[in-house]
Amino acid sequence: MRAQYLSVNGVSRVWNMILVINTGSSSIKMALLEMPSERVIAEGAAVRLGEEEASLNWNVGGDIQHVALPAAGPDVAMQQMLAILFRRMDKERITAVGHRVVHGGERFIAPTLLDDAVIAAIEELSHLAPLHNPPNLLGIRAAMRHLPAVAHIAVFDTAFHHAMPLHASLYAVPYRWYSEYGVRRYGFHGTSHHYVAQQAADRLGRSFSDCHLLTAHLGNGCSAAAIAGGISVDTTMGMTPLEGLVMGTRSGDVDPGLHDYMARQTGASLSEITAALNRQSGLLGLSGRSNDMRALLAAADEGDVRAGLAVDIFCFRLAKALAGLAVSLGQIDALIFTGGIGEHADVVRAKTVQHLSLLGLVLDAHRNSEHGRLSGGLISAVGAQVPVLVIATSEETMIARYVVDMLQRLDRTAE
Amino acid sequence: MRAQYLSVNGVSRVWNMILVINTGSSSIKMALLEMPSERVIAEGAAVRLGEEEASLNWNVGGDIQHVALPAAGPDVAMQQMLAILFRRMDKERITAVGHRVVHGGERFIAPTLLDDAVIAAIEELSHLAPLHNPPNLLGIRAAMRHLPAVAHIAVFDTAFHHAMPLHASLYAVPYRWYSEYGVRRYGFHGTSHHYVAQQAADRLGRSFSDCHLLTAHLGNGCSAAAIAGGISVDTTMGMTPLEGLVMGTRSGDVDPGLHDYMARQTGASLSEITAALNRQSGLLGLSGRSNDMRALLAAADEGDVRAGLAVDIFCFRLAKALAGLAVSLGQIDALIFTGGIGEHADVVRAKTVQHLSLLGLVLDAHRNSEHGRLSGGLISAVGAQVPVLVIATSEETMIARYVVDMLQRLDRTAE
Repeated sequence: MRAQYLSVNGVSRVWNMILVINTGSSSIKMALLEMPSERVIAEGAAVRLGEEEASLNWNVGGDIQHVALPAAGPDVAMQQMLAILFRRMDKERITAVGHRVVHGGERFIAPTLLDDAVIAAIEELSHLAPLHNPPNLLGIRAAMRHLPAVAHIAVFDTAFHHAMPLHASLYAVPYRWYSEYGVRRYGFHGTSHHYVAQQAADRLGRSFSDCHLLTAHLGNGCSAAAIAGGISVDTTMGMTPLEGLVMGTRSGDVDPGLHDYMARQTGASLSEITAALNRQSGLLGLSGRSNDMRALLAAADEGDVRAGLAVDIFCFRLAKALAGLAVSLGQIDALIFTGGIGEHADVVRAKTVQHLSLLGLVLDAHRNSEHGRLSGGLISAVGAQVPVLVIATSEETMIARYVVDMLQRLDRTAE
Repeated sequence: MRAQYLSVNGVSRVWNMILVINTGSSSIKMALLEMPSERVIAEGAAVRLGEEEASLNWNVGGDIQHVALPAAGPDVAMQQMLAILFRRMDKERITAVGHRVVHGGERFIAPTLLDDAVIAAIEELSHLAPLHNPPNLLGIRAAMRHLPAVAHIAVFDTAFHHAMPLHASLYAVPYRWYSEYGVRRYGFHGTSHHYVAQQAADRLGRSFSDCHLLTAHLGNGCSAAAIAGGISVDTTMGMTPLEGLVMGTRSGDVDPGLHDYMARQTGASLSEITAALNRQSGLLGLSGRSNDMRALLAAADEGDVRAGLAVDIFCFRLAKALAGLAVSLGQIDALIFTGGIGEHADVVRAKTVQHLSLLGLVLDAHRNSEHGRLSGGLISAVGAQVPVLVIATSEETMIARYVVDMLQRLDRTAE
């Protein structure tokens, strides 16, 4: 435990190095942040793990390393990345490690110090996120072996949404599906929604706890959230990251009768249908071309009708979801776009906001085409009722903040 | 064909009798309407068909008949009802029969004169509505046998929604699921949405084709629609009547990953899970008590927490859906409540509209508690931005109107 590195009188005078690790099914992303400056000291990823083409890209203080790691798994990849890092800096300078964990269920509603009991509990939650929690745990175990002397803290994607009211979090299904099997809406991307919402409050010069915000995180996965009084009160993703908005390869919402219909029509099994909804649907399924919004926008420009349709459906469904989320806010103080698509696809933002004139949202075409870069993130029209902002998300930064908060709390407790 | 009963110069001077038939899986509802006065001459139903307790209730011009029909099927029940009717009036006076058909697929986008080819096509569409189209067809065949000399016209629940734009009607699934299997959003309750929307335009003294309306049909099944320029531009039910709002026993929207999760957790088959979403979910599933809104409101008043929760979720989800539908309207000229719950549950209307203050909706508590009976259906606060109305639906009347329209068109074509 390095909590002694932190001052405890509210002002952090001591600088801390927080390593942030996000282990997926075939990748590890890592970042080293200096806190509280939030300066990124190192960042990179090992990708295609388990394949012949596995490799790592790792920028340590401007020294960019690219290393092939044929057939390496996550443990070897992490070891390599840490070895490169510790050639440039003293391992002892790392204060703590923050790990992204996708599903915290109903139990983990805040960042949590990892120990054997917590690891076992995350493992038990794997049935809710079978594609995500197991690799997250692999990364946690590897990192704890490589860095046994520091605190490891789990930061959950679901946690920011934990205070959603029951009317937004329960499905209208047999109640024991909830009480016995945990069937409820959890929400995801919480770290990103929290980060950009807080940034937006800062930019608007308002207290986060007084703001009513809509956030749209549009990346490979897409979700939107309604944030009031500093907490998420509704969000589009539910029990799994398949619900809600149209995504790259995920369908988002469909008729709950669709599965049975397709099984009867095609003879496909439920797991095949669910896999198709996860991997062959969304932008890819509609366009028949690509799951990449850039490619679809270019194709639509060249006259590809189905590419254009995929973009239109993506934007319409997003607008419809945002209007639905607004019900939980009562008023809208700002709408924030983030994530790869949210930050870079001005056409998507324009089409989406066009559907939302009823709510007082109007963009400034020039600011939008500049992605708000010359206007402090603002892309709404001057004098528009509701500010619309583009804010680059940084889940790494948010995880580092959570970790520092956690360490400070631990430190206070220890006094 | 009795089209000669109708004048064709735009003014109907000749009165017509239209028999409206709605055949379900275990019931037949019938009504005889005099047109264009829309006076109901007879109405009633045969229920629990196929069971020992089967019976009919049939009010013919104020003469109310209740007859037990142990184990009778639809054919016998219809024969009995027609026999009772024709004791009081000449069979020859019936101009035409209008049949409610639930699913018209992409082919039937308007009322259609029934012949062998149309019947075969409706049969082909049964895979889209296996619980509804087959009994509808049973009723059609029986009625054509009993009344062979008149026109039989099919009126489709899906037809009013046929012009929904593609962005509202396609799911983000593999495109060939649409092109090969017809997976798209069709919408239902079209006859009811159309009827109350037209009534609302009349009451507001506006042209139907200029109005932007939200309609909420809340009965055993529940759906809401956005209607602009006289057509439905979006609705909450989709490929099947399971999508969208919370209903008596139907879940409405759930996470598309839920089916696979529950199959893995419980070993249930996909058809068992789908059956549970249709029959053990919604208000019944949440409350564990009843699918009847009246019973739940009473229980909630007496402190039943889960009954209260079921009501709250019903209202929240409805409000969220209405806000989402409003995106397709751009402006809201009125919101209309109809159906058993919509017409009689003032608490549901109050809780729903409370969530919609952002859209300028405010109720008048007194008018709402009177169900608008003393205020021409209006329940919104005086001076509120958006009128809110309670309008009793009448699918029978709307079907009779469609039939008369159809006969007039046929007549014109024949000239």
